[in-house]
Amino acid sequence: MLRKPKVLARRVVAQSRLFRVEEVELEFANGARRTFERVPGGVDSVMIVPLIDADTVLLIREYAAGSHRYELGLPKGVVEPGEDPLVAADREIQEEIGYGSRDLRILKRVSLVPGYIEHHSLIVLARDLYPERRLGDEPEPLEVVPWRLAEIDTLLERDDFDEARSVAALFIALRALGRSV
Amino acid sequence: MLRKPKVLARRVVAQSRLFRVEEVELEFANGARRTFERVPGGVDSVMIVPLIDADTVLLIREYAAGSHRYELGLPKGVVEPGEDPLVAADREIQEEIGYGSRDLRILKRVSLVPGYIEHHSLIVLARDLYPERRLGDEPEPLEVVPWRLAEIDTLLERDDFDEARSVAALFIALRALGRSV
Repeated sequence: MLRKPKVLARRVVAQSRLFRVEEVELEFANGARRTFERVPGGVDSVMIVPLIDADTVLLIREYAAGSHRYELGLPKGVVEPGEDPLVAADREIQEEIGYGSRDLRILKRVSLVPGYIEHHSLIVLARDLYPERRLGDEPEPLEVVPWRLAEIDTLLERDDFDEARSVAALFIALRALGRSV
Repeated sequence: MLRKPKVLARRVVAQSRLFRVEEVELEFANGARRTFERVPGGVDSVMIVPLIDADTVLLIREYAAGSHRYELGLPKGVVEPGEDPLVAADREIQEEIGYGSRDLRILKRVSLVPGYIEHHSLIVLARDLYPERRLGDEPEPLEVVPWRLAEIDTLLERDDFDEARSVAALFIALRALGRSV
């Protein structure tokens, strides 16, 4: 078992409405010292793999401010403070794809940029969907794109399906379903 | 083809040594306006899938400042300004696992947090490895952990193998190798 580096000092070096950056001075087990910057975590997010039938996942096309383009990917969102993650997952798919789910299951908790950012995201499989639309805070309606699981290679080749978390979530779901892909 | 939102205004709202956060005011095609925060991108990074033989990938165990714990994952690093990405990938595996590669291939360019962060990472398959150690800036030597590709489910179940990009990279590599996973 590796001993975590000792935190010698920490201080906030930048702060905006959404982001707080802290600088940490660390001493590793071998005595080496380093100063790193990190974004301490808040709440988790959820990313949902909604299956409309056994062979078809519902993707969305949504504007992403970071990459400043429309991205194809899985529905996702932040878990509100005090909210159960499965309730959050159900709420997000109602807002983003217009379906609720009677069968939600957390498959794995993943990190996005563990070297720098503390944030984690829960991958949730959603089955037994039923039409249910809830109004979210999206600036425009999202396009829903059904995709056959058998055509995952075509999806991977697409330049606009590029979020590592969406790729990971799809494969994790396929493994959990016991599907050879 | 969706028309990207129009950028009405942008300004830097926070800045540290590593992170710059800007606020953007956007007008969507339907007239809706939103203010978002984003971290504009710099250089790409690389994440490498190094195969020591046809059935075994070399993972590393490394301290991650964001999650403040040791994480099991794939070797990775930043492409230096002006550096060829494949040269960067080769350099990183020499620094982190003690091998160079005679057969490097970019499989896909992924985003990490496209909703907020512009950064992209190239997934690189590395084969035909040979021992070659180069000193990096790591504070301590990294533990190298060989993992059999056939045992990917056991890996996915591990709490310390959780970076979405590592999960995505492994599956992308398996697909590229034509292996049923």
